[in-house]
Amino acid sequence: MTVRVGVLGATGAVGQRLIQLLEPHSDFEIAALTASESSAGKAYREAAKWRIDAPIPEDVAEIEVGATTPEDVPDDVDLIFSSLPSGVGAEVEPEFCEAGYVVSSNSSNGRMDEDVPLVIPEVNADHLDVLERQREERGWDGALLKNPNCSTITMVPPLAALDEAFGLTDVRVSTLQAVSGAGYDGVTSMEIIDNAIPHIGGEEEKMETESRKLLGGFDGTAIELHGMDVAASCNRIATLDGHLENVWVDTEDDVTVADAEDALRSAEGIDLPSSPDQLIRVFDEPDRPQPRLDRNIEDGMGVAVGGVQETTDGLQFNCLAHNTMRGAAGASVLNGELLAANGYL
Amino acid sequence: MTVRVGVLGATGAVGQRLIQLLEPHSDFEIAALTASESSAGKAYREAAKWRIDAPIPEDVAEIEVGATTPEDVPDDVDLIFSSLPSGVGAEVEPEFCEAGYVVSSNSSNGRMDEDVPLVIPEVNADHLDVLERQREERGWDGALLKNPNCSTITMVPPLAALDEAFGLTDVRVSTLQAVSGAGYDGVTSMEIIDNAIPHIGGEEEKMETESRKLLGGFDGTAIELHGMDVAASCNRIATLDGHLENVWVDTEDDVTVADAEDALRSAEGIDLPSSPDQLIRVFDEPDRPQPRLDRNIEDGMGVAVGGVQETTDGLQFNCLAHNTMRGAAGASVLNGELLAANGYL
Amino acid sequence: MTVRVGVLGATGAVGQRLIQLLEPHSDFEIAALTASESSAGKAYREAAKWRIDAPIPEDVAEIEVGATTPEDVPDDVDLIFSSLPSGVGAEVEPEFCEAGYVVSSNSSNGRMDEDVPLVIPEVNADHLDVLERQREERGWDGALLKNPNCSTITMVPPLAALDEAFGLTDVRVSTLQAVSGAGYDGVTSMEIIDNAIPHIGGEEEKMETESRKLLGGFDGTAIELHGMDVAASCNRIATLDGHLENVWVDTEDDVTVADAEDALRSAEGIDLPSSPDQLIRVFDEPDRPQPRLDRNIEDGMGVAVGGVQETTDGLQFNCLAHNTMRGAAGASVLNGELLAANGYL
Amino acid sequence: MTVRVGVLGATGAVGQRLIQLLEPHSDFEIAALTASESSAGKAYREAAKWRIDAPIPEDVAEIEVGATTPEDVPDDVDLIFSSLPSGVGAEVEPEFCEAGYVVSSNSSNGRMDEDVPLVIPEVNADHLDVLERQREERGWDGALLKNPNCSTITMVPPLAALDEAFGLTDVRVSTLQAVSGAGYDGVTSMEIIDNAIPHIGGEEEKMETESRKLLGGFDGTAIELHGMDVAASCNRIATLDGHLENVWVDTEDDVTVADAEDALRSAEGIDLPSSPDQLIRVFDEPDRPQPRLDRNIEDGMGVAVGGVQETTDGLQFNCLAHNTMRGAAGASVLNGELLAANGYL
Repeated sequence: MTVRVGVLGATGAVGQRLIQLLEPHSDFEIAALTASESSAGKAYREAAKWRIDAPIPEDVAEIEVGATTPEDVPDDVDLIFSSLPSGVGAEVEPEFCEAGYVVSSNSSNGRMDEDVPLVIPEVNADHLDVLERQREERGWDGALLKNPNCSTITMVPPLAALDEAFGLTDVRVSTLQAVSGAGYDGVTSMEIIDNAIPHIGGEEEKMETESRKLLGGFDGTAIELHGMDVAASCNRIATLDGHLENVWVDTEDDVTVADAEDALRSAEGIDLPSSPDQLIRVFDEPDRPQPRLDRNIEDGMGVAVGGVQETTDGLQFNCLAHNTMRGAAGASVLNGELLAANGYL
Repeated sequence: MTVRVGVLGATGAVGQRLIQLLEPHSDFEIAALTASESSAGKAYREAAKWRIDAPIPEDVAEIEVGATTPEDVPDDVDLIFSSLPSGVGAEVEPEFCEAGYVVSSNSSNGRMDEDVPLVIPEVNADHLDVLERQREERGWDGALLKNPNCSTITMVPPLAALDEAFGLTDVRVSTLQAVSGAGYDGVTSMEIIDNAIPHIGGEEEKMETESRKLLGGFDGTAIELHGMDVAASCNRIATLDGHLENVWVDTEDDVTVADAEDALRSAEGIDLPSSPDQLIRVFDEPDRPQPRLDRNIEDGMGVAVGGVQETTDGLQFNCLAHNTMRGAAGASVLNGELLAANGYL
Repeated sequence: MTVRVGVLGATGAVGQRLIQLLEPHSDFEIAALTASESSAGKAYREAAKWRIDAPIPEDVAEIEVGATTPEDVPDDVDLIFSSLPSGVGAEVEPEFCEAGYVVSSNSSNGRMDEDVPLVIPEVNADHLDVLERQREERGWDGALLKNPNCSTITMVPPLAALDEAFGLTDVRVSTLQAVSGAGYDGVTSMEIIDNAIPHIGGEEEKMETESRKLLGGFDGTAIELHGMDVAASCNRIATLDGHLENVWVDTEDDVTVADAEDALRSAEGIDLPSSPDQLIRVFDEPDRPQPRLDRNIEDGMGVAVGGVQETTDGLQFNCLAHNTMRGAAGASVLNGELLAANGYL
Repeated sequence: MTVRVGVLGATGAVGQRLIQLLEPHSDFEIAALTASESSAGKAYREAAKWRIDAPIPEDVAEIEVGATTPEDVPDDVDLIFSSLPSGVGAEVEPEFCEAGYVVSSNSSNGRMDEDVPLVIPEVNADHLDVLERQREERGWDGALLKNPNCSTITMVPPLAALDEAFGLTDVRVSTLQAVSGAGYDGVTSMEIIDNAIPHIGGEEEKMETESRKLLGGFDGTAIELHGMDVAASCNRIATLDGHLENVWVDTEDDVTVADAEDALRSAEGIDLPSSPDQLIRVFDEPDRPQPRLDRNIEDGMGVAVGGVQETTDGLQFNCLAHNTMRGAAGASVLNGELLAANGYL
């Protein structure tokens, strides 16, 4: 049975990736696209400056873009994907939920709200059930599910595997993030050619809090943040796609490289259409993963790990994921699939 | 009084920077240039593929390049700057020292030898006196002084200031290093455009050991490594010059951002011709320092720090220095000036 | 019926693209790989530093690489693809032809030889028959077929279409070429970051002579160079793949943009497995084609044209093709298919 | 005697370069800075996002930015430098001229107006006198002088030298332009990393018309456009500064490389504070000039030429100039110096 879906913020960088993923999707059918007022009423082809290096899907190109309000979305749409600036998301996402829509959102607003599940399906699918509390407390027919920030998603699958096996107490992470994470106009060429920027506004805090929620326990009612101490340092570099991260973890139990790589390689996946066959790929070559060479593994939905080494208190390793696929559009689609599989539509 | 100097490995990336610094130097005069056998006998203009964005000094361009052996260097040369591949350095530097030459070397061989001073003049000039032990034990008339690796030099001045003020127990550092650090042919364009490489062979170990020697104590005879635990993760990115580093330090004493910035800003310099007026510049803007904008502060001899934040166990901050100036050629020249000032020539 | 094929120079940049194209090929089966002496005897996985952003084909990875001599290639190989440095190609390609192998070569040696067909199948497939003269004169059982240089291939399909429609008298072309055209180690990162190089050794002459041979007449015996005057100016820029070219043509007949675009769009293709559905795609948007967005049209085998404008004496336009696909590996594979379709195997 | 100057549009990319040049200028003193309404009233330090890799001049940093109206500029300012978006320039520059200010403008509005001199001092200083007609016809006490577009300035000095020596009939030019030419936000990183864009809006027409005005004759009343046919093809590439151009010229007289290089090398300069010692530097190395290596010759005010070759109808060559120095800010400053030297202040 095909689920009719809508995309809020369809013209942006993540919106375009959402369309690239949803158009050929076996279970989903694109039924509505929205954007800002200035785009409303135009054909998607006109409204979006398509910048993906694959052609714009012809049938989607002809869809008329609506404004980002529930009124502009047909009633028979069952699932909404949202990738809006957080200020806009904070305002309109609740309107859609109140109007009965189920929303899988990539927008950063509300991710740490107690009754909003923040989910990576392979990591903490059980948190989904906090939606019952959400519906009860907010009186919504719809529902709001969030995926984490792209830089958080890159490191959390390996952190989850290592936490389960050895227990994590401290995490230090330094990121080398691609420009696409800031949207099409987010980083100018004069800022980044022959340069790097050691600051991305709000990013460090997102990594520090979201990761603890994702690895936190859920007792059926409340999600308790994981007790580990997380400190992040975020950098923008001149790559187009793919966030590379250097991670140090202190572990409760003793750990060897061999045991750690075993734990990573055997991290369990989940049976959803867009989930990768192998969640974590571990490289033996010390100079991998690299953004250009490895961001597309598992169609951009895998997480690559390499350079695993023992330290005095635990481990250090590098990890990489495609920030607009695994880290954003693909994450939302996967969450939509999770909602469908669990009867939330 | 002008010191006549020679440059070993004068055609390489650091060799060219050495010439750029030495040619206008008030106290030094270039009297000999050496390179590999294939370049010997040619004019420097022919032997070197000059790639600095300032013209090749005309008088240096006409110097005939010699082979890298003591026989090809005039006797009246008092000071040798060496920037050779470590294998070559390990072989020929001792020959020069035995022949009576005083060598300020940027080559990585022998940096951790017990009787070889590894010096950043503003940090551990007192280590220079281990040269007396060196001369005695090795029977040299000459002497061998080393500067650290470029990625080590970038972080050690701030580490020294913080160690003195608060005591360091643990250091984690993630680097974003420029391609010039690998020499002209070290990184191909296909490796680095739209990419980053999370591995630089041997670099992590250099940072982990050299930093502990630089901050180590010296009792007049032996240098004791500092007891702090250092773990490094090294990355190559698409910048031309300037190594940017994200650092976490755990401190013995409590520390605030204000106290830390005070300690950094008041780090003492040294009175040598090439030393910067202010050793460490601290930025208030959270997105600084950046390689392109800040690598040239203090004529490329300063260290820039920004993003100082408190963590659970200490601090995190970013630092930056020009890797072929402060981190290599300038470091060697400064060490040469230190040798001259201390009567070793 | 499957043709068993060998690849000479299999570890290089074009060699890897050849393997990427040949491994899934419906008619060809990889039966032999050769490289330099130092690689011979190793598994391909070890011999090649695989740098394509798709995984190395597992079955090819296990093939033992041979030396580049006919003795190291099994007798039942029917077709050889060659991508060797021109000096090596000049030496060993004749040895293979003499030993009876049919060779589709991307190497630049011998392209202008009178009895060597230089072919783009959609443009001058009829030139193939000069092979009869070649076999007669050289006494070969095998045969040697060449594809042109990557920068030539990019402009010749549109030139051919315009020449047929309007007659060309003068061509001026300025190129913006990707670094992959120089091989993996051909352009260092220090040469090209924040830079462009207005010279590629021998490239201008290749474009000026090869294009006139490709558009030349063939009377069954001799190929006569086209009489048009061609002047090229070649530049290397910081793109990974895709050569972009600005072209001016003076035409014998009057020409309008509409007529020119018609002629380009209706350029006939050829019915071979790797040939594109549409040879030339014409963009209406003035800022297209762009290397990153358009190099992969028609699986990298199409030629993109845009910015068609009238000039005083004819037209100016921009064109783009994927230099290691349409311009090198794909060109050779297509030529191999042409050889097979015409009974030369 | 020091001239008090003002800068309109002082916070933009060219505005910052203007300040970098004017602050240490021997004859000029910065007395007023203006920007858009949103910046008015702020200190320049706050209003400008300083992005030059040299420190912001401390005394300029404290100047309060005014709005871009004559009322916000002190009466004792004698000379105005303008670098405004052309729409704004078209509106406010006449207001300044009417209020009595002499304006040296880099803005593109009005460059082809018959009574507006478009000047490169070394090329057509005599055109300056059309200002008398301008003042008469427009009733201005002030005056409006323009410098050409950055891509025009790069090629016109060599064109002028060749035209004088051999007579030019046709010019074809292909450009590889730096991102700074579009201003700080003009080109996004996602547009240009691993990419090139074969279109810059309006740029081709500017090159085609401005070059003919610059080389045109002036009879004391009217400027007659040069009769040569000029066709330009403009590309944006991933360089920060420095426009590189491939040029073909057809000449009336026969020409050899030696004669052409003589004509270029002996192009006369002009005796103004900011003019270079040698206007045109000709490289013998075929791979020069290159943007990163050569944009700073003569402090960014020289024009570099290389790759001079004979063609059937004339010559081809490459040229390069620093687009925000020689091509914009430096061009305006030089024009300001020309105005001062000719008694227009």
